[in-house]
Amino acid sequence: MGSSVNGGPGGRVSNNGVDKGVDFANYFCTYSFLYHQKEMLCDRVRMDAYYNAVFQNKEQFVGKVVLDVGTGSGILAIWSAQAGAKKVYAVEATKMSEHARELVKANGLEGVVEVIEGTVEDINLPEKVDIIISEWMGYFLLRESMFDSVIVARDRWLKPTGAMYPSHARMWLAPIKTGLGDQRINDYESSTDDWHRFLDETNTYYGVDMSVLTRPFCEEQNKYYLQTSIWNNLHPHQLIGIPGIIKEIDCLTATVEEILNVRANISSSITEEKTRLCGFAGWFDVHFRGSKQSPARLEIELTTAPSENNGTHWGQQVFLLHPTPRVGKGDDVLISFSMDRSKENHRLMEVEFGLEMRHLAGRNPQPIKKKFYIE
Amino acid sequence: MGSSVNGGPGGRVSNNGVDKGVDFANYFCTYSFLYHQKEMLCDRVRMDAYYNAVFQNKEQFVGKVVLDVGTGSGILAIWSAQAGAKKVYAVEATKMSEHARELVKANGLEGVVEVIEGTVEDINLPEKVDIIISEWMGYFLLRESMFDSVIVARDRWLKPTGAMYPSHARMWLAPIKTGLGDQRINDYESSTDDWHRFLDETNTYYGVDMSVLTRPFCEEQNKYYLQTSIWNNLHPHQLIGIPGIIKEIDCLTATVEEILNVRANISSSITEEKTRLCGFAGWFDVHFRGSKQSPARLEIELTTAPSENNGTHWGQQVFLLHPTPRVGKGDDVLISFSMDRSKENHRLMEVEFGLEMRHLAGRNPQPIKKKFYIE
Repeated sequence: MGSSVNGGPGGRVSNNGVDKGVDFANYFCTYSFLYHQKEMLCDRVRMDAYYNAVFQNKEQFVGKVVLDVGTGSGILAIWSAQAGAKKVYAVEATKMSEHARELVKANGLEGVVEVIEGTVEDINLPEKVDIIISEWMGYFLLRESMFDSVIVARDRWLKPTGAMYPSHARMWLAPIKTGLGDQRINDYESSTDDWHRFLDETNTYYGVDMSVLTRPFCEEQNKYYLQTSIWNNLHPHQLIGIPGIIKEIDCLTATVEEILNVRANISSSITEEKTRLCGFAGWFDVHFRGSKQSPARLEIELTTAPSENNGTHWGQQVFLLHPTPRVGKGDDVLISFSMDRSKENHRLMEVEFGLEMRHLAGRNPQPIKKKFYIE
Repeated sequence: MGSSVNGGPGGRVSNNGVDKGVDFANYFCTYSFLYHQKEMLCDRVRMDAYYNAVFQNKEQFVGKVVLDVGTGSGILAIWSAQAGAKKVYAVEATKMSEHARELVKANGLEGVVEVIEGTVEDINLPEKVDIIISEWMGYFLLRESMFDSVIVARDRWLKPTGAMYPSHARMWLAPIKTGLGDQRINDYESSTDDWHRFLDETNTYYGVDMSVLTRPFCEEQNKYYLQTSIWNNLHPHQLIGIPGIIKEIDCLTATVEEILNVRANISSSITEEKTRLCGFAGWFDVHFRGSKQSPARLEIELTTAPSENNGTHWGQQVFLLHPTPRVGKGDDVLISFSMDRSKENHRLMEVEFGLEMRHLAGRNPQPIKKKFYIE
């Protein structure tokens, strides 16, 4: 044998049918490292957005009760307190809670910020809150399915007049050009070439014919190299068409049913002369608008769109096409997009693209269907 | 957020207190990829040893009933059948069992090899077996703790006169020289330098003093860079002292208690002129000797020792020292070694070294104690 083994504490089955031990072992434990917290705290776009959402709207926080869902190192809870909150409940599922507690104390806020170790589904608060602040966004917004927990917190603990920080979220999709595809094709092909050398050897030296496994092996490698979306920070000039919104979420009213899947039919018109449609990029933005009763004085946006100088640790998710259709300025790409949670792991996603080209000139190619996995 | 999420099915707590769902999610799932099976099947040292253990001792298999624990792709079960076994039970916990079944059929052995999907702890056989064959060895032999399952299989299903393949295993330790240490020190130092830049920024731009987290961050990074053993295929000339055996296992009689931990006090004399003791390498070998009642005609050895041309996918585990003591030919290094399973994950290990130098000439330095983690 000889393989990788991951860590993680024991578990029990939680009421949503997801094994909690597995979820802790696989998900929460990734957030229990300061190194990983630091990576997020070094994301200037992320930090500036939340910092300004709090301090440019100080008056929203003064004298208020705040709940921070998944506080991690405690930064959002500390800012809320510094902005004048009367009380901040900072909930963290991992042992990171201990570091958050130290940090709160070192910044002289132990009188205001109360760090609670536990999942927001399990904890109990002595009062309802005016504001729920949380950085719950995963790759392409919904990966990690953490907003489920924010919804639970909101429905249990937010006052009817309360505000969500962020208050709104959107998912975007756009056609792109990229060199990533050729790379992946090469990796896939050398992997399958190598497989055939392996078949010959196993047959010659060890008397076993493994060719029956060729199909499943190629399927496995195809999924890994060609059907798994790729993290990338794209340059804006790699966008070759008009980005479209495929999902809008009002964080104050959204239900889990609403975010279980994403279905959208959009059309993107190509903005570039003769080029190749290499695939699509998916990203998100969120907005901090406060609530109807207490709107933010200054609306803040956090965007993870392709940017020359303001990339984020979220980057974009890239979905590659093989082969890459020819497109030109004025052509329309009709995209029917659907995303669902994977059955094996509710924090991962399965995506399906249906594509139709409407060329300005010449014949329209056959519609394309392709499935992807967001791992 | 934005982090890695691993897969894995749901689970229940098994009687040994280890959450089975977590164990599947973290451990077994790594073996459910053909790519990973291929890596093991491409290890010529591993393949040749098992192939010869079976076919150089054909007469041991003719007309016998065999159990393969953790058959993976099914290769050992197929060889056992090809060598003349009357019946082979091939047990595999993951979906790889389906591929094994196809492979057995494609090689015309479905009449002899019965692939059973399940853990060996849970399955039931209609008869006792003459031979248990299994490739259960993890990095440094005991990582993965898979031999526990082989012991269960042996105590339940092996006839009193039965034989284990392999029949014996040994763990080795030797002093080495390597450049890996400087590399790791550099990585550690640039990581902590970067942390201090991060502290200044967070303080200046975001008004939070994170210095209280410096100690835990450095401890985390120290564990990662300097206390975690490293996989490496060393060249024999990197050994600077006589290797010593720290554990011997008779696979026919060993109990789980016997392998829960490893305790050894050995002395290694340095064989090289003036050099640095950069650390230690740990590896294992196993032997195929059959049993007293039916000894193998030809004893086969599978060794993962440093080798110029016969490296394995197990390589060696390298434990680095900082600083690196000066040693010279004839000096003795007294090593008190202990290894235990980690409390968080019984398939990972925690190692402690106690070191004393006996220099031929000059003063002996202070004894050294160092803790390592085999992740």
